[in-house]
Amino acid sequence: MALPFNEYLQARRAEIEEALGATLPVPPKCPASVADAMRYSVTAGGKRLRPVLCLASAEAVGGERALAIPAACASELIHTYSLIHDDLPAMDNDTMRRGRPTLHVVVGEGLAILAGDGLLTEAFALLARAPETTDPALVARKLRVISLMATAAGPIGMVGGQAIDLACGTPDHAGPSAAPLDADGLRAMHSRKTGALIRASAGAGAIMGGAGEATLDDIDAASAEFGLAFQIVDDILDVEGVLADLGKTSGKDAAAGKPTYPALYGVDLARRMAADCLARAERTLQAAGLAESRLMEIGRWIVNRAH
Amino acid sequence: MALPFNEYLQARRAEIEEALGATLPVPPKCPASVADAMRYSVTAGGKRLRPVLCLASAEAVGGERALAIPAACASELIHTYSLIHDDLPAMDNDTMRRGRPTLHVVVGEGLAILAGDGLLTEAFALLARAPETTDPALVARKLRVISLMATAAGPIGMVGGQAIDLACGTPDHAGPSAAPLDADGLRAMHSRKTGALIRASAGAGAIMGGAGEATLDDIDAASAEFGLAFQIVDDILDVEGVLADLGKTSGKDAAAGKPTYPALYGVDLARRMAADCLARAERTLQAAGLAESRLMEIGRWIVNRAH
Repeated sequence: MALPFNEYLQARRAEIEEALGATLPVPPKCPASVADAMRYSVTAGGKRLRPVLCLASAEAVGGERALAIPAACASELIHTYSLIHDDLPAMDNDTMRRGRPTLHVVVGEGLAILAGDGLLTEAFALLARAPETTDPALVARKLRVISLMATAAGPIGMVGGQAIDLACGTPDHAGPSAAPLDADGLRAMHSRKTGALIRASAGAGAIMGGAGEATLDDIDAASAEFGLAFQIVDDILDVEGVLADLGKTSGKDAAAGKPTYPALYGVDLARRMAADCLARAERTLQAAGLAESRLMEIGRWIVNRAH
Repeated sequence: MALPFNEYLQARRAEIEEALGATLPVPPKCPASVADAMRYSVTAGGKRLRPVLCLASAEAVGGERALAIPAACASELIHTYSLIHDDLPAMDNDTMRRGRPTLHVVVGEGLAILAGDGLLTEAFALLARAPETTDPALVARKLRVISLMATAAGPIGMVGGQAIDLACGTPDHAGPSAAPLDADGLRAMHSRKTGALIRASAGAGAIMGGAGEATLDDIDAASAEFGLAFQIVDDILDVEGVLADLGKTSGKDAAAGKPTYPALYGVDLARRMAADCLARAERTLQAAGLAESRLMEIGRWIVNRAH
């Protein structure tokens, strides 16, 4: 562990930015309107948590990082698509994100929906074409990553989580899921909406890095804890209004009557819950012999950001 | 060729309906709201042109049809997602489709967007997981099909085509593509918007069926002609108001000032253009030794429907 974590993070992010920039389609093959819209959102300056976690997982299992770069990029494309669609007027109706107007404010709803569709689809095109290989072992890994990512992003994952979230805010589209969420319901929603892609990103890196099944299970368990901690901290930051400094509308979930961890447990207990997630992840990673990897540092970064 | 084409079509459609029904996610793994929304649109009774073409291509190259069933279903999931998103108020704002209210009319825009996202994602999950196999040759075919489908559906394919279409109707979101489309522009738009998935469906069937590269090229060329013929006939039917009987709003494209083949060429010439597409496809299939397959019958079905 030569580099301090900050420098490690900076180095990985630089790799990701370069690869992301190279993967986005450009005119004339792609119409300029949708190419520009996709680029606007992808380059809006996110934390790149998912791709960093993906690369760190590949490294943790002793894999070649280059093999995981496409999966890292795909995780960010899928994350960006989900933000664009979640921000739409028909969903959360958010007008600011990462300190800039949301995409639909800039290009209109139709093109924003299409840019999201394009990013989601491009993620799978990228996973299928890169890394370019005819090695049967790598081809099989790529297929497994596509299955993992699509399942995490789809109706039993992120799409399902957002549908539950949508039902909380709009009792009209009720159905069985429209009852106010209790603690279990809140956790289940976030495990789909946020947790699924965080776990899939870590899993994809480990798969591309050639991890065995037991190690995959451990990385999955640890990243599930990271995902939960991430959401708890996000809720705390939202309540504390800290997110305003990060360019998002703060206090919005609470105002919309959406359940949050601080609302259910209070800020102090919520903070302890996030710390407990980290502790469980650490035990898992220690038992798996991965305590010396960058994974725990990423977990601590998730919990300590903006504090 | 034992069966008359109508019976062949009926048999293939029955297989597709069964497989589609089995592939859609169900509660409790998937929230009921989004599961019901996805099912509403998938079971709305389309022609199943793309999946039938996919299966027929697999058969035409002597492949096992069962291997192509997942790709056939995926093509219909992607097609259905595109209809749901294209129908949204922010896009074409269509309220009727296949004789029933469009999905956003029934469940609201937010859930309709999510159901589309879910279908698109589920298509790739399905392509990755089925047919279940560890045979390296089949694994490689599956990966190639995912690449083909994602490229066809993505920003340089369907998403790009819809972005161009959107720009025609809404000069506000102008960019370079907002100039009125001439004949070349119209053809380019439809080759992305409709043609790309029709070609990918035929190509996916041929790939899963084990076709060689030369045969793949021929099937691609023939299905590109089918795709163009399909769009020309669609435009003619729209102008003639025949689509009203099929449950769509008719004369809508012309009213919206969108270019159509009859508007550019007149109905008679447009009809001859569709026949020319068929003739070119037939020559290609004959040269490839595929004239005795079901593919030409599918081409004729495309051109003669509703006449």
